[in-house]
This record gives sequence, C-alpha cells and structure tokens, in this order.
Amino acid sequence: MSTYRVAQVTTARGPFEVVEREVPQPGPCHVRITVEACGICHSDAFFVAAALPGVTFPVVPGHEIAGRIDALGDGLQGWGWEVGDRVAVGWFGGSCGHCVSCRRGDFIVCENLKVPGWAYDGGFAESVIAPVDALARIPDALTAADAGPMACAGVTTYNGLRRSAARPGDLVAVLGIGGLGHLAVKYAVAMGFETVAIARGAEKAGLARRLGAHHYVDSTAGTSVAEALRTLGGARVVLATAANSAAITASVDGLAPRGELVVIGADPKALGINPLQLLMSGRVVRGHPSGTAQDVQDVLEFSALRGIRPTVETLPLASVGEAYQRMLSGGARFRMVLTSG
Amino acid sequence: MSTYRVAQVTTARGPFEVVEREVPQPGPCHVRITVEACGICHSDAFFVAAALPGVTFPVVPGHEIAGRIDALGDGLQGWGWEVGDRVAVGWFGGSCGHCVSCRRGDFIVCENLKVPGWAYDGGFAESVIAPVDALARIPDALTAADAGPMACAGVTTYNGLRRSAARPGDLVAVLGIGGLGHLAVKYAVAMGFETVAIARGAEKAGLARRLGAHHYVDSTAGTSVAEALRTLGGARVVLATAANSAAITASVDGLAPRGELVVIGADPKALGINPLQLLMSGRVVRGHPSGTAQDVQDVLEFSALRGIRPTVETLPLASVGEAYQRMLSGGARFRMVLTSG
Amino acid sequence: MSTYRVAQVTTARGPFEVVEREVPQPGPCHVRITVEACGICHSDAFFVAAALPGVTFPVVPGHEIAGRIDALGDGLQGWGWEVGDRVAVGWFGGSCGHCVSCRRGDFIVCENLKVPGWAYDGGFAESVIAPVDALARIPDALTAADAGPMACAGVTTYNGLRRSAARPGDLVAVLGIGGLGHLAVKYAVAMGFETVAIARGAEKAGLARRLGAHHYVDSTAGTSVAEALRTLGGARVVLATAANSAAITASVDGLAPRGELVVIGADPKALGINPLQLLMSGRVVRGHPSGTAQDVQDVLEFSALRGIRPTVETLPLASVGEAYQRMLSGGARFRMVLTSG
Amino acid sequence: MSTYRVAQVTTARGPFEVVEREVPQPGPCHVRITVEACGICHSDAFFVAAALPGVTFPVVPGHEIAGRIDALGDGLQGWGWEVGDRVAVGWFGGSCGHCVSCRRGDFIVCENLKVPGWAYDGGFAESVIAPVDALARIPDALTAADAGPMACAGVTTYNGLRRSAARPGDLVAVLGIGGLGHLAVKYAVAMGFETVAIARGAEKAGLARRLGAHHYVDSTAGTSVAEALRTLGGARVVLATAANSAAITASVDGLAPRGELVVIGADPKALGINPLQLLMSGRVVRGHPSGTAQDVQDVLEFSALRGIRPTVETLPLASVGEAYQRMLSGGARFRMVLTSG
Repeated sequence: MSTYRVAQVTTARGPFEVVEREVPQPGPCHVRITVEACGICHSDAFFVAAALPGVTFPVVPGHEIAGRIDALGDGLQGWGWEVGDRVAVGWFGGSCGHCVSCRRGDFIVCENLKVPGWAYDGGFAESVIAPVDALARIPDALTAADAGPMACAGVTTYNGLRRSAARPGDLVAVLGIGGLGHLAVKYAVAMGFETVAIARGAEKAGLARRLGAHHYVDSTAGTSVAEALRTLGGARVVLATAANSAAITASVDGLAPRGELVVIGADPKALGINPLQLLMSGRVVRGHPSGTAQDVQDVLEFSALRGIRPTVETLPLASVGEAYQRMLSGGARFRMVLTSG
Repeated sequence: MSTYRVAQVTTARGPFEVVEREVPQPGPCHVRITVEACGICHSDAFFVAAALPGVTFPVVPGHEIAGRIDALGDGLQGWGWEVGDRVAVGWFGGSCGHCVSCRRGDFIVCENLKVPGWAYDGGFAESVIAPVDALARIPDALTAADAGPMACAGVTTYNGLRRSAARPGDLVAVLGIGGLGHLAVKYAVAMGFETVAIARGAEKAGLARRLGAHHYVDSTAGTSVAEALRTLGGARVVLATAANSAAITASVDGLAPRGELVVIGADPKALGINPLQLLMSGRVVRGHPSGTAQDVQDVLEFSALRGIRPTVETLPLASVGEAYQRMLSGGARFRMVLTSG
Repeated sequence: MSTYRVAQVTTARGPFEVVEREVPQPGPCHVRITVEACGICHSDAFFVAAALPGVTFPVVPGHEIAGRIDALGDGLQGWGWEVGDRVAVGWFGGSCGHCVSCRRGDFIVCENLKVPGWAYDGGFAESVIAPVDALARIPDALTAADAGPMACAGVTTYNGLRRSAARPGDLVAVLGIGGLGHLAVKYAVAMGFETVAIARGAEKAGLARRLGAHHYVDSTAGTSVAEALRTLGGARVVLATAANSAAITASVDGLAPRGELVVIGADPKALGINPLQLLMSGRVVRGHPSGTAQDVQDVLEFSALRGIRPTVETLPLASVGEAYQRMLSGGARFRMVLTSG
Repeated sequence: MSTYRVAQVTTARGPFEVVEREVPQPGPCHVRITVEACGICHSDAFFVAAALPGVTFPVVPGHEIAGRIDALGDGLQGWGWEVGDRVAVGWFGGSCGHCVSCRRGDFIVCENLKVPGWAYDGGFAESVIAPVDALARIPDALTAADAGPMACAGVTTYNGLRRSAARPGDLVAVLGIGGLGHLAVKYAVAMGFETVAIARGAEKAGLARRLGAHHYVDSTAGTSVAEALRTLGGARVVLATAANSAAITASVDGLAPRGELVVIGADPKALGINPLQLLMSGRVVRGHPSGTAQDVQDVLEFSALRGIRPTVETLPLASVGEAYQRMLSGGARFRMVLTSG
C-alpha cells in the first residue's frame, strides 16, 4: 500500500471528503498504525467547527482509534512494541514531557497535550502516525470496534469513576445514557457501586435496567432529580456525562454531604451553582480530563476481565458523512464507529 | 449571680436589646460557660435576618465564644472537663450523633448541626449553655479575645487550608483580607505555602506583606487576578474568603492544573463557572464547612505554637449594636469582639 | 421471659458452661437484643485465654451478633430504633465519645473501644445489652446467620478492601481462604478487582474459583508467592487475612511499586520486613482495624445488593463447646455460628 | 578543557583514585554539566561496596550534584535549558519512560531508575553527562554546596514529610539528626508541624532546639522513645532518617492511632514490627523513595523561600578519600560536600 484514504474537512463545519494520501514513514519515537476502527466522539465537532484554539484545516478528526502497528520509527527500544501489535489511541495522543504537569507525571493535563484530530491527523483514516507514549495494548478479547470507543468514552467514564470519592457500596448516579453514559453505568455496576441512571423519559427505564443500573430516575418526571437522589440517600458521586449545564446544575442538591459532582461533558454554558449548595455540606465539583495511554490500557483490560463492551453502530470510512450526522443528531445507539473496508 | 445579661433581637433585622435573664442550670451532657469574649461573624447576619430556615425569635447570636466553665451537667464522666476550664465554642455547637454523617464521624456536616445563635442561644451574652461535644480547650497562651474568633474564622480558614490539596511549597492564594482572610494568610504562611494575598486596591499591599504574604495581587488593577496567578505559576489552591461570587469566579482561571478552589464565603449569587474551565485541567471547586470542636482545639494549639493571633477590635457587650453595625459596614480591622465587663 | 441462657467461661481457657441469668433492663442509650445468631471469631480466643488486658471472668464472648431489639433504654430519641428492629453488633460494640480519636470521628480506633465479650457480655447468649451507637440495621434479604459473621469478618475484609489503595481493575490478592478470606475474595470480585486467592495446597484452586477469584496461588508450590504475584504484574494490595506472620512477610515482594500490605490477621509473631523491601518501591504495610456500626451497616447493604453471603456452619447455643473447638481446629467451613433454639 | 578529573574506585571498597578522562559530548536528550559541588550520601557506600545489583567498576559515585550546563545534546526543544543554567541532579538521575510506573507518571519508582553512580558516572567528578529529565533548576539564592545535598538528602526528607499523612499542627517526629535528619527537622518546622527531634544523648538537645524542634527526645534516656512520644500525644508521623532498624522499630508504639512510620533510612536488618502494633490502631509503615527532578526543584524553591540551608563541610575533589571516610565515620556535621577547584 503506497497510498491510504483519509476523511477530512477543509473548512469550518464543512462536509467530509475522502481523499488519497501518500503513506508516510513514522519519525523517531513514533509508530504507524493501520486503522481498523475509529469511534466518533461529540468532541470531534469542536475540531470540525474550529471551536478550539489551534485548529488548522484540513482537519482529520478521530481520537477513538483501534488498529495494528505496521511500522516502527527509531528510538523505541525498551517499549516492547512490535509490528502487528494491536493498539488503541484515544484523546490522549501523547504529551510533551517537559511542562510542569508532565514533569510531575500528570500527563493528561499536559499543557501541550497532543489530541488526535487536533495536534495531528486523527483516526478517520486508514492509517495514523502516533507517538509511542500514546499507545495502549488491546487485549485479545476485544474487537477493534469495541476498543476504539473505550479509548475516549470508555477511559473517561472509567477513570472518572475510579478516581472519584466513591467507594464500593456508595450510591453513584450517572447523568445521561449516551455514548459515555451507557458505558459509565456498566462500569459503575462492575465497580460495586449502587448505581442510578438518570435520563430523559420513562421509556429509558428498561434500558437502564438492562445496563445493570439498580435505580432509574426520569429527569422529566414530576419529582426533581435532586429529590429523587435524596430519597435514595443522596449520591456520593454524580458523574455528569451529559453536556447540559442546566441538567448538571439540577443534580447538585441530590449529592450527599461530601458528595462529588464529576463533570466530563462540556457544555459551553456556565454551571449555576450557588456557594450555599456546597459550603455547609462540603460538596465538590470536579472536572475530569479523560485518561492517559496507560489508563486506556487499564480500561481495556478491565472491560475484558468483566465482559463489558460498548454498544456501537458501525459504518465504513466511506460513509463518514452519514455517520457523523448520526452522531450529531443524537440518534446513535450509542456510539458510531467507522470501520475499514 | 442569679441573672445574666444577653443581647437579643426580637424581630428580623431588629435592633439589639440587652436584657436580664435567670441563669439556667446545664442539662445532661451540657456545661454552662461564663462568656469572656465573643466574636461577631458575618454569618450572624443570617440569623438576625432570619435568612436561614428554623430561625426563631428572639435570636441571641454569637458562635465565636470564649470563656470558662462555671457549671457541669450530669453525664460528663470521662470527658475531663472541670469548673474553671477555659473553653471555646464555635460554629460547631454540637452534633446529633445519629444522622448518617455523625455515624460516619463527619460531625461538621451533621444534618442537625447545632449552631449557637441558631439552634440555641449564642455568645452575645454573659452566659451560655453548650453541649459537651462542642467544647474546645483554650491554651494558656491565648486570651479570650484571641480564642473567640478562632472558633469560627480561625478554624474555617485553618481547616480549609490543611484539608486542601495544597502541600508545603505550593502556591496558595487567599481571596480577601478581612476577618477570615487576614488569618488565612497567616496560617498559609505558617503551613509552608508560597502565599498570595488578593484584595481590592494597591494600598493593601503593605498589609499583605505585614501578614507574611509572599505576593500581593490587587484585583482592581489592569491585570486580571487569573492572569496574575498564572504568572506566578498557577495556584494549587485559591481559598475564597470573600463572600463575592463574581470575584470567586474570576479566580478560577488562575488555578494550576488540578488546582482547587475552596469556597468558605457565602454569597447567595451563583458562581458562573464553565465546565470547560474545569474539564481538561482537572480543576476542582470545593465547599468547606468550618470545623468541629476538636478542629477548633487544633487551631487554638497551632496558633499558640506559631504565635498567630487574630487582629480584633473589642467593645463591651452593652455596645453590641455599635459593634454589629461596624461588622456589617466592613470597617472592622479585622474582627469585632464583644467582651464582658 | 425473665431468665435467659448465656455461655461463659470462668477461668482462662476454661470450658464453656451454659447458665441461666436474670434478664436485665437496658440503661440509658442502650438497647436489649434477642440474639438469633452469633458467629465465632478467632479473636474470641484472646478473651477466653485472657490474652488481652482487661479481661475479667466470667467471660461471655461473641462479637458477631445478629438479632432483634426487644427493649429500649432512655435517651434514644432521634436514632430511629424500635422494638422488633433487626440489628447486628460486631467487634465495634460502641465507643467512648471523648477520647481524641472519637472527637476526630474515628471511632474504630477509640482508646476505650467497647468490644462485646471484652468490655461487656457478648453474643454467646440469648440476650445482649448494647449501646445504641453499636447498632447496624440488617436488611431483609439477610438472615441472622448471614448477618452475624458480617459484623466482624465481613466488615473487616470489606473495609480493608474499600479503604485500601486499590482501585477497580487493580490486582488484589487475598492471603488465606478461611472465615475472613472467603468473604474477602467475594468482596474483592464485587468491587471490580482482578482477584488472586492465596492458600495452602493445590486442592483449594477449585474453591478459589467458585468464590470468584480470577487467579489462584498455592503457597506450598515450588514458585514463591511473591514471584507468582510478580508474574501477574505485582499486587496493588495484599489483604492478609491469615494470622501467620511468616506467610504475610513472604508476600511483600509480590507487591507492585506503591503496593500495600493490609494486615487484618493477628499473629503475635513479628513481621520480618526489611526496609529495603519498602524503600525504593514506596511500599506500605498497614494495619486495618475492622469497622464501625455504620461500616457494618454498609457491608450488610452491600452484601444484600450483590448477593454475597458467608458460608457458615450453625450449631445451637447449647453446643457452644463443640462449635468453639471446631473453630479452633481450623475445620470450620468457613465460619461457626451459634443459633438460638 | 579537553580532559576532566573524576574520582573513582576500581574494586569493591577500594580506595578512591582521581584520574583524568576525555571530556565526552552529551548524546540526544542529554546535557553535560560542569560540577561545582557534590554531596556524599551514605548510599554511595552501596555502590562503592557493590552491595546492590548491577554495579560495575570503576564506580564514580555522587548523586547530590550541583553545577552548570556547559553543553546540550540534540532533542532538547521545549525543555528550556540553556548553556550556563544552574542545575542539580540527585538520586533520581532519569527514568526509562516505558515501564508501567513511568507510564503511570510515578517516575521515582521506575523499574529502570538511573541513579548517578550506579546507572552512569556520578558527581565525584568535574563533569557529568545527565539525561534532561534528571535536571532541576537551582534558584539564585542557593549556592552549589547548598543545592547538592538537597538533591538527595533534602528532597527525600521534604517529600517524605509533605507526602505523609501529617497536616499542619500535627505532631511529627524525626528520628536521627544527621545528614538527612537535620534538614528534616528544619522542613518539618517550616511545614507547620509540631516537631520532635529524636537522637542519642542529652547533649543533642541544644542542637535540636537550634534546628527549630519544639521537643527533643533522648533515645538513650530512661524513658523509652515510644513512651516519650505518647506523653506528647502520640506522633502522627515518625520520619525515620536513621538507618537503624532497631531504633525504627522502637518508635512504633509512639505513633498515634492512624500514625505513620515513614522509613527513608536503609538498614539491611529486618524491622521487628508485630501485627498487633498496627492492627487495632490502624498504624502504617511506609517506605519512601526520594523524589523526582521536579521534586528536587520543589525542595530547592521551598528552601530558598523559607531560608533553609543544609549544614555542610566542604573538601575539594582531590580530598575525596578523606571526605568519604569522614562520612562513613559518622563525624560529618552534617553533610560532606566535594567542591571543584
């Protein structure tokens, strides 16, 4: 193969076009990956819309990448990667190594974080070049279409939960049952939390139960979300996967004392939280930033161990425009994944 | 003494009147305290204005109480308290023991917290009856006028700092230099933090330095508070002592990655924090609820060990109206304290 | 009923005798419980042998108590207990309230901890008087014979795990599969840990698998325990339920960097750990002290939620001597429980 | 300069000889440093004696290096280092980047940690080549002779304390007042701890006080160390800087409930700690492994901010043998430092 196909947009919010490019060689400390699957994340829209600083066109989005290494750059001694190894690359597409956060070992808040689709061409393509520190190994038990979404949607929810204040037996609520939320419910159950799913509409109760939730709260019902959570004893953690600041704010009073609102969904509207909602109860609002390559490897292994898989709809790369629109419309059940071939 | 004087208000925002009452006997698990000094806290205004649920008139405010035990109720075996012991009682005026927070040992977020001036008559008086679990021992090195404000202003800032994410050497900013803030700066320095004081006006720079701050940021200057903090490397913790939600919100972008905004000042206006300010940087907003009786004892001992005292203005109990107005006006330097005699 | 039966020993290591006593009334802040089941714990032997300070004869052991409240003392307003409520009392039989640990809310390390069978007559009886702060509510889903052992064996392992450094997906090893260990394996699995059971003999592999363990290590095999754990990646936590200091020490080199050895089994022999085993790897050895009444309630609810039960052998109170000998011999599968009737 | 002098030993425990070598060029991601000062640490003796795996002769010890960058290798873009920059390199001489600990960002427990004098030639020399991730910037306020010892003795004690369970106001004991201990006492005081120094002999009381300690315990006096600590309320943390397992073990019963023994001194003899000393009190024994380059930079900045300096004796590189013997004899007050010229 001397050329490969990529799906790109050339202007803000422009349509996707699939073009041929020359296959490049990986530079030092980089590998080349044959992409087998790539999930479509809501945050890809930030790049397509040039809504974040530093976006330059053409944009090739895609940071839920799963595939196989097909070429190794120089300087990879000791890392243990071989051609043919199955790897995933997520939101964490490498870090700079020299900012203060990196020097402290907290790579995911690197000041120069390299997000695929933002810092370099992402996974809406047949081939990707990625830095070695971005790679996570995929266990045999997982397909590429399983592993891709776990490199962003999976690790973000898994990490958000395992690094929260909740301990097994605590009441944990997941706000939203979409691409992130449906995985969050499964992870919360597998971590031993008493799990509440919160979504819009009574008809989602069955879905919540099938995902393993112990309780379901319909946020459109007469009882407020906060009151419903208080009736259950108050949530130790609310994991806010919905990018909806109003809905997030409405959950705060459902937190138990010392309860923690972990925000992973980015709505550009401000949260309307009052100091009095936090003060006497010692409540906390925490932003949670996805996870590193090792975290991705952790979530892949955890998912393999516990039999957890994302629910996805797949389309071939050539149908990227249709798949992207389906993600934007909110109709995906629950994650769109582009596949090769 | 068979009667004692108390300062009370009988209607919402009514004037203070000083009246005589019969001296009561302490019930089981309670002590009676001869009040020697009582600080005036901004939150006393919540009770005077009936702005919190459960306030009933007449209100006798005062939760920065320092004095001596003069009578013991039954059931105090093992506690070690004697008539004549010097004690302080703060915002934490006792807990119920049976709510879930109490059963978990987290008394300060007790669902039935007994705040003096709210749950029972407070320290604007010559005598107070308090439950035994509300008592903190005052070290010899501290006067009553020192100890009173430390039972609320002191413990809130000391606890807020020692339980924050900051470790010695980290950059810690104190927002506001008032009744709480002036103590917070001293505590932050004594805890080994690189300390920034933030206040309004260039003329406070000298004060900040005298309190020990390593840096001063004038929030009315051309450079924003957030930018000034980033220039210093970004704050690990901002301790927001000012009850001003706009000023608090303006500091968020001055937090370092993983930085923590600890809110102890209660402005009824909402914080306007955007999820994007928290997400990628892993920042945290935390409400901090004062401290228990043991925490008060800790701050008293810490202050004695490190030679830290509040700066107060004292007036006799009979001048309660004048003292209260001076607190409300913001003119106090830095804490009004009512004294006996 | 005006008399009730208790099983007591009157001299160190003396035989059990079952005697009749007058039924007492509960004092203030105490309840009387009709005992339905009481587990026999290895640590009961410390009391029977007078091997701990403050043991006075006759000794009535038993701190894995499950039954029903049949009488209430004074001063119980607000606690919500009624006659007929099902309750458990474990190692934590109440705390003093006034020592520094209690004032800090850390009741389980109370300097004057009231352990049933040590501080007051325990559950080898038809009736027990216990302080209100010792009570945990039993969910309907659990029988008394289930709940008793969970008030000590259950809470100790559950708490030891949930308060350890391990997070879901981490490798956690349980050393010993006995009264504590068989529950620990089930809890570890339910908390999302990759779980290793360690015991003596290849024949226990099947048992380990039935308990849900992902791996089994035979400590009598050619490969050392430490090496076996390192082959699995190194343990984040080893929970040492076996009261065998040599076996505990032998596991230390199987800990990953920052790994934690959580000791809950008390062998009077010293651990032979070398500083070099801890230093460069940042490893930790932690003693873990059971749990409070609220912790017991947590483990009961967690067990109900996740369908976890202890495996027990029951004998009536009258057969106390036989049951105790069976516990001592190590033959119990896995917990002896005395039952009423 | 085309040659430089190094002090080496060519056989286990052999004498030091000072030889000339060709000045090498730094490779990719490395810098060359003109050494201005290098402290002598007790652990250098492990390399001189070939007492650790992987030691190869000739050995050039020295991991408390301070100097100036005089040449830059390739691949240093973004790090911000320039020729002439003042830098320190300590025990942490770089990490591999690809082991699990490194991928988790916990570089100091890297499986392939590069300790100067072990993994590469150390600072007993006029010039050192070091990887860029090993560099810490020296603030202007510190001399090279100040900075060198802080890169190991300083960071180990500073980190051991700031990452311990102790919070400002807590009782912290430092066991041993030597090269590490004298700094530990100063840091503990500057961090707001109530500080106890423990050493052998009544005559050290004055020294302890001059270092700022609030209390002194003579471990050779009639009262045991444990009892002396309990009289002070029990230590939240004992930082064991003395490489003496018997003395370390003797301090355990002086820990408060939940107290933490932080071991940083490596005696090859086992600790004789009994499970019963840890269990009911929830005590912890923790090994603490020095600190990374960023941690070294933190301690240098903290020392500059708080005016803390090590007390050292300096000798020129040519007197390396004399300096090393003085360290071994225990006579140094408190750290031997080799200086250039």
